[in-house]
Amino acid sequence: MKRFYQYSDSTNKDGNFYDIEEELFYFKSKYQKIEVFKTFNHGLMLVLDDIVQFTEKDEVFYHEMMSHPAICIHKSPKNILIVGGGDCGVLSNLVKYNFIDSITLCEIDEQVINVSKNFFPFFSDSLSDKRVSLKINDGFAYLSSQKNMYDIIIVDSTDPETIASSLFKGNFYEEAFYALKEDGILVAQAETPLLAEYKELRKMIFSNLKSKFKYVNFIFFPMPCYPTGYFSAVLASKRYSPFDLSKDEIKNKISQLNLKYYDEQIHFSTLTISHMFENLLK
Amino acid sequence: MKRFYQYSDSTNKDGNFYDIEEELFYFKSKYQKIEVFKTFNHGLMLVLDDIVQFTEKDEVFYHEMMSHPAICIHKSPKNILIVGGGDCGVLSNLVKYNFIDSITLCEIDEQVINVSKNFFPFFSDSLSDKRVSLKINDGFAYLSSQKNMYDIIIVDSTDPETIASSLFKGNFYEEAFYALKEDGILVAQAETPLLAEYKELRKMIFSNLKSKFKYVNFIFFPMPCYPTGYFSAVLASKRYSPFDLSKDEIKNKISQLNLKYYDEQIHFSTLTISHMFENLLK
Repeated sequence: MKRFYQYSDSTNKDGNFYDIEEELFYFKSKYQKIEVFKTFNHGLMLVLDDIVQFTEKDEVFYHEMMSHPAICIHKSPKNILIVGGGDCGVLSNLVKYNFIDSITLCEIDEQVINVSKNFFPFFSDSLSDKRVSLKINDGFAYLSSQKNMYDIIIVDSTDPETIASSLFKGNFYEEAFYALKEDGILVAQAETPLLAEYKELRKMIFSNLKSKFKYVNFIFFPMPCYPTGYFSAVLASKRYSPFDLSKDEIKNKISQLNLKYYDEQIHFSTLTISHMFENLLK
Repeated sequence: MKRFYQYSDSTNKDGNFYDIEEELFYFKSKYQKIEVFKTFNHGLMLVLDDIVQFTEKDEVFYHEMMSHPAICIHKSPKNILIVGGGDCGVLSNLVKYNFIDSITLCEIDEQVINVSKNFFPFFSDSLSDKRVSLKINDGFAYLSSQKNMYDIIIVDSTDPETIASSLFKGNFYEEAFYALKEDGILVAQAETPLLAEYKELRKMIFSNLKSKFKYVNFIFFPMPCYPTGYFSAVLASKRYSPFDLSKDEIKNKISQLNLKYYDEQIHFSTLTISHMFENLLK
């Protein structure tokens, strides 16, 4: 029986492990190693370059928190871009909203899309929604070609030490700013707040975004299959404060969606940064 | 090099791991196996019967959340009982408050106290505080002998499948109710909210407490060294709602304490139960 180890950081001294019932898929694409495992307790697990992307059991935390807070904050989100997100987990959350007109998914690695089609139909069925456009393209290059196009951009990337490195650089955030409309919102994964080795990254993300966007807020949420079990995303908004909406507004938007984690209470509690996390940005 | 595995649940198929730099202590006491490890990234780690109790790096989450919310909710906490807590982590948080008159620590296993004295002086130095009384006694038996004595009781125990099993039973909560004064508050660890195998336990805790106490609320917080990285405690209060205090009241009580995690924002956000967790109690 194979035991898969997910190391917490580059020292490789601790982390999570999963005993693997079956390796369902192994492929080295042009960009990365792609693996799909069947675990004993967590359902299917997608691993890219040895980093767990999600397990079926745990995916709700990450995918819901990357999707719904921005949709609720924006007064009228119509056009959305997902950068990365080839597993279609975020996409499957967005297609639930009737008021969205178009969703563009820009994934660099077509093989991830194919893996989702083969193993994660509960995500990839969303690709057949008529509002969805799929671009197989480099996220940075694609984004740079877009001006004043999107209400929301969601950066659902792998970690900064992978092929996604260009998505964590200052000029990426600048291009994202210009690709957004005048009241647009950027959402990006911002790594775990509890690991020292991402401290400089988080400060860089914050200061870059703060130089362009009116509101920059981190959200914190559980994600058991990521190192430390805790993760963060950053919301950068040109016009709407993430605090400036009522619980009823959130309830009204999501009441029909059968979400498992995100709701009007979680919205505000995950935005709360204690002084512990404020210190992480200093 | 030894690798320590912390399994998530009784299937032993997944969990956390830590490479061990040095095993500093190994002893089989009358009650349990006690180990102290030096880890590479998390400082010292206390393990009782193969279950991680804390690491130096992560202990703040658990120990602060077991200690400070109840102190802030209670209008005038003077006399406090800790059941278990032999590592002195909770005790070291309580002695920070000048307005507390007495703290009784009732730990069944004197060897845990000795380990704390030897390896965790940053916790056990609090034993020398004049307000502290140490009882080496069974928590259930001791508690049952106390009536109308305490403002706050904190149950800082190991898991229900260990020597602490009597501390998770209905009549324990009843005895705790009578050991508390008329405006008393009980705090007890309530396991991780994300593991199915604790669902029945949590429902039992909730219904038992709800039959006696006016307010019963769970708090959720990160605890990276526990399975899933997320943990909970329950607050049962005879008179004071945990929501019925202002941020300024909390600030005033804790401003001089140099806490690392808990603050007036975390107080309210950790009390927030999304429908996901509400469903866990059904």
